[in-house]
Amino acid sequence: MSEIFSYERLYNFAYNVFCNIGCNPGDAKLATSVLLSADLRGVDSHGVARLTGYVRLWEVGRVNAAPAIKVSYETPSTAVVDGDAGLGLVVAPFAMKVAIGKARIAGTGWVSVKNSNHYGIAGYHAMLALEDDMIGISMTNASALVAPTFSIERMLGTNPIAVAIPAGDQPPFVADFATTTAANGKLEILQRKQEPAPFGWVQNKDGQPSTDANELKSGGALLPLGGDREHGSHKGYALGSIVDIFSAVLSGASYGPWAPPFPAYVPMPENMPGVGLGHFFGAMRVDAFRPASEFKAHMDNWINRFRAATPVPGEEKVLIPGDIEREMEVFRMAGGIPLVDPVVQDLQQLAQKLSIIF
Amino acid sequence: MSEIFSYERLYNFAYNVFCNIGCNPGDAKLATSVLLSADLRGVDSHGVARLTGYVRLWEVGRVNAAPAIKVSYETPSTAVVDGDAGLGLVVAPFAMKVAIGKARIAGTGWVSVKNSNHYGIAGYHAMLALEDDMIGISMTNASALVAPTFSIERMLGTNPIAVAIPAGDQPPFVADFATTTAANGKLEILQRKQEPAPFGWVQNKDGQPSTDANELKSGGALLPLGGDREHGSHKGYALGSIVDIFSAVLSGASYGPWAPPFPAYVPMPENMPGVGLGHFFGAMRVDAFRPASEFKAHMDNWINRFRAATPVPGEEKVLIPGDIEREMEVFRMAGGIPLVDPVVQDLQQLAQKLSIIF
Repeated sequence: MSEIFSYERLYNFAYNVFCNIGCNPGDAKLATSVLLSADLRGVDSHGVARLTGYVRLWEVGRVNAAPAIKVSYETPSTAVVDGDAGLGLVVAPFAMKVAIGKARIAGTGWVSVKNSNHYGIAGYHAMLALEDDMIGISMTNASALVAPTFSIERMLGTNPIAVAIPAGDQPPFVADFATTTAANGKLEILQRKQEPAPFGWVQNKDGQPSTDANELKSGGALLPLGGDREHGSHKGYALGSIVDIFSAVLSGASYGPWAPPFPAYVPMPENMPGVGLGHFFGAMRVDAFRPASEFKAHMDNWINRFRAATPVPGEEKVLIPGDIEREMEVFRMAGGIPLVDPVVQDLQQLAQKLSIIF
Repeated sequence: MSEIFSYERLYNFAYNVFCNIGCNPGDAKLATSVLLSADLRGVDSHGVARLTGYVRLWEVGRVNAAPAIKVSYETPSTAVVDGDAGLGLVVAPFAMKVAIGKARIAGTGWVSVKNSNHYGIAGYHAMLALEDDMIGISMTNASALVAPTFSIERMLGTNPIAVAIPAGDQPPFVADFATTTAANGKLEILQRKQEPAPFGWVQNKDGQPSTDANELKSGGALLPLGGDREHGSHKGYALGSIVDIFSAVLSGASYGPWAPPFPAYVPMPENMPGVGLGHFFGAMRVDAFRPASEFKAHMDNWINRFRAATPVPGEEKVLIPGDIEREMEVFRMAGGIPLVDPVVQDLQQLAQKLSIIF
């Protein structure tokens, strides 16, 4: 069961929550916009459903609501940003803007971030580059839930990659995906419905393929994109590793199985090799390669041609990355955002605890 | 059946072939080294097995053996390289060196290439960055053999991505993979053995899942990494698209279904929107983010920890991307390179045609 809430209502609530824990109004607005962009775009696992999780991290002292985010090292096209344990929702846009600033002068900008926290949906940050006619890239490491090919142990997060590419008359190309077969949010939906997961999504605690959507609770793991070796899981494992290394080994954040876990009740790993969670951002000016008008005309041509590809029987058309999320955004901004009952109850409890109207 | 050849023998033969079609000695050496690195590293589909294919492209005038490769546009951290229809085996290292040169000054370098041809294995070019303590990135578009999610039509190549990351005491991390479930070369092995392909590798001409390894010959297509929508093929499709756009839309090469086909007997697509095949290269100085010694010590730690992950029963250990290829390289350099009979016959015919000793 679920209930529908207007964007404004959820926005006001989340904004008040962020203010309540000590964010200044600018940061609270930014964090709320990033968080709710997930709900609008249909990535329900990364929206207000996570709000209580952020508050809990603040309660245990792992989130600093008033961080002094700074560039700690830089070259003409690179920088390292120290997030000062701030909300990733605030640290990430700061870092992406540093990348965009570098790209204005050097053609491209690349920023690796340490000492941060969960940054919401990857796509939001990548899309910040679009208005400047730049390609935006965003990735982050995350709590270790994923077993590499041949591993029983969870060593990587779902480590998403987002790439946003501007077009002309067409809407932009926006890919935003976890480097696992399925994101954890999709597994949670199956758990609620008490339905099995397809093979290739999870393995059990002994490293065997499983269709039990609850495997993660009993020591199992998510699987890298590909699912098993025969279907290319070593490629998903490599992608997740690249995200981990760019986000955390380059910056000095904590990596691999040492990535700080999102749930505040999970103890921090021992002997962490770096500080907090890591992200990686890139911005490339398209006119650092060819005139922007030319590039955008060819992107329109690319998009039109792919949209016109003959679909398989039973499917209406071939989609361009970003199509579904963009349509969902329009739909939910007008018609409201559905939240499942457990999320509604969770937010009601949070409202009560902080004495905020929901 | 197969026969074993020494590296030297294959090297001398390929070198003579490249000289014979008009490459200068430097270019012939470079092209041979790139080509044979595939045979050494066990990527048999991209080694001397393709030599005749390159010669055929030269015969029909699609490969220029004496190209004037040049930087046609640049900013501090970017460049576009015009390959002048040269062998990709020669154009790609030129472009990668431009990226490395930019990175020395700006921290990173990013080069998109147009007017090129098939560039051999992606990993070779990425690995050029390692000796300068840089991360190397290499990707290319290719003949359209892959159907996007929900498409019957072949719209993308197997569009590989390679990322090489330096370590300290450990060998480097080298990922090099097609953005399809399985590379075309793996399908060719099954064709020779007359064995079926696993589900998720190919679809038939009607867009239905198939296990027939010969599907490509009857209008079928390779599938993006993930295989089907339920297993994340939209992610593989997005990755292949990103490679296509970075390689060809940024540079002005021909993209998507218009990418020039590798087999010289296949007619060129009509209304090509760009010139030749495209590649994309990146080089990032690790000390543009943190001191190289620090980075390399943490990469060693990363690699050691992943290698030590508890393996699933029946598997010896968790592998690091590049392990298999590096071990194969040592093995084949010492013990020789096995070539299957059809490849041997093909090379014998080539030797006869060009009056070169094989």
